[in-house]
Amino acid sequence: MLKIPPHQVAGHQAGNGKLGPLVDESGRFYKPLQGDERGSNEVKFYESFSSNTKIPEHISKFFPIFYGTQLIEASDGSGLKYHLVLHDLVLGRVNPSIVDIKIGSRTWAPQSTEEYMQKCLKKDVETSSLPLGFRLSGIQIYGNKESGYWKPERTSIQNLSAEEVKLILKKFVSSNAATDSDLEPDCSFAATVYGGSTGILSQLLELKAWFEDQTMYHFYSCSILMMFDKEHASVGRNPGAIIKLIDFAHVIEGRGVIDHNFLGGLCSLIKFISEILTAPNEHTTEVSSKPDHQNFICFDNGVN
Amino acid sequence: MLKIPPHQVAGHQAGNGKLGPLVDESGRFYKPLQGDERGSNEVKFYESFSSNTKIPEHISKFFPIFYGTQLIEASDGSGLKYHLVLHDLVLGRVNPSIVDIKIGSRTWAPQSTEEYMQKCLKKDVETSSLPLGFRLSGIQIYGNKESGYWKPERTSIQNLSAEEVKLILKKFVSSNAATDSDLEPDCSFAATVYGGSTGILSQLLELKAWFEDQTMYHFYSCSILMMFDKEHASVGRNPGAIIKLIDFAHVIEGRGVIDHNFLGGLCSLIKFISEILTAPNEHTTEVSSKPDHQNFICFDNGVN
Repeated sequence: MLKIPPHQVAGHQAGNGKLGPLVDESGRFYKPLQGDERGSNEVKFYESFSSNTKIPEHISKFFPIFYGTQLIEASDGSGLKYHLVLHDLVLGRVNPSIVDIKIGSRTWAPQSTEEYMQKCLKKDVETSSLPLGFRLSGIQIYGNKESGYWKPERTSIQNLSAEEVKLILKKFVSSNAATDSDLEPDCSFAATVYGGSTGILSQLLELKAWFEDQTMYHFYSCSILMMFDKEHASVGRNPGAIIKLIDFAHVIEGRGVIDHNFLGGLCSLIKFISEILTAPNEHTTEVSSKPDHQNFICFDNGVN
Repeated sequence: MLKIPPHQVAGHQAGNGKLGPLVDESGRFYKPLQGDERGSNEVKFYESFSSNTKIPEHISKFFPIFYGTQLIEASDGSGLKYHLVLHDLVLGRVNPSIVDIKIGSRTWAPQSTEEYMQKCLKKDVETSSLPLGFRLSGIQIYGNKESGYWKPERTSIQNLSAEEVKLILKKFVSSNAATDSDLEPDCSFAATVYGGSTGILSQLLELKAWFEDQTMYHFYSCSILMMFDKEHASVGRNPGAIIKLIDFAHVIEGRGVIDHNFLGGLCSLIKFISEILTAPNEHTTEVSSKPDHQNFICFDNGVN
């Protein structure tokens, strides 16, 4: 029995007659292939990656398991359609907190058409991709049984300043800040979710080391999902904090060069997480880092 | 007595009545301030950086020493003009080999005007900046007393493929390949120039560690100079291999975010140098990595 995934935070979503991914009870996630080259490119990537013997196991675990493609009834009632069959990343989780972060200050590949490049560039400039090297694409933070999830509009989190992004990444690991409230987030789960030898920072650093070396793929417009179970963290159990890479419709061959665009954005994200771990209770001031519309900035303030 | 710098490989050059930098015999380098905001921005950067107590000594050594600004006779005969006064980076070197590498896949800051952004973007797309994360801006490789320098046209080295850039970075540390010849470069100085605890790779890694952490400045359109003395290397003396950052007209404040654009490009350059050190004699095939003009690439060949 196929149903709409309960914990999807970004991307096209099924429901109300729309086309989107489905899941079954055995733990498989069915993602409809986009009709144009994006669909075939994502299939090609999964086929290449899943049979690539040069990918170490400690890296392949960051990618969804690929089971091939399958014709199934599409969620929009349009009939049989090809879907990617993947492992359902939230299988077994009851109330996961999840954030989807699109990595890279540039979401378009060098060989894109002028039209596609300008379209992506406009969005990169208007969101936090350009200044921060990544943008938040979707988030759900579990509060408790009464409050449920805090799940802000996706469009409201894509163009945040550095301080605002930091605040959200603090809320993500806080026991008191699952809503829009003004409470200073307590970061009480930062050490167990972001920190430690199996925490999210360690995983991001493993991924970084691979990106400093691998020259096989460039991951444009790809996201890192970070997730954990707050209810487990609250009672001292392992919160199951993991990262996963998703969305490979714009992956291209690396041709002997590292993916400097993804790596730069990943290092920027790592710096945010590191700072939260180092100083979780540092007061978050809501200073906007929106740039002035001028070419040059005075260094007289703020630097010395 | 001011004269034209003998070893400048990129940027505006004095001579033939043109405006460009000058040097004196005491080891000072005079760079004319560009009349627009670029000039004042570069002065502001040097003033900020040279008085910034948060810059560790092992990092400030990678930057030219700044002695202020001074009114001197411009090289184009236009009269007195303000110049940046800097330490002459090639002071004391007789026949230095030098390469100027503009770092970053993007040479424009987020708050640039639309016109400036599109101008830079066009150049980034047309050169190797976009695919490689950096582009060669100028180079001189010393051969020997008879052949002198190999100094290709600057426009001919800006849009090279990954393989072509690797070949030039191999020639840079070879005893047999200072010219356009077809000789396979022997990389005989790779270990002493790129390698070792004081070599160029070590210095680049020191710089990288700083860029993973510093959120004070973003260095758009800035170059890394790498230089050494081949004649010293040839006779077993210390080749004096160093890196220096130059050209700060487009530096902006970091505002709490790392410079992911510079860092990505730097990591890409590091990967090139590492590969040459690891496999200096690997045959360099002239496979073009120029991208096809299509959005998506088949993964069937080359990856598995």
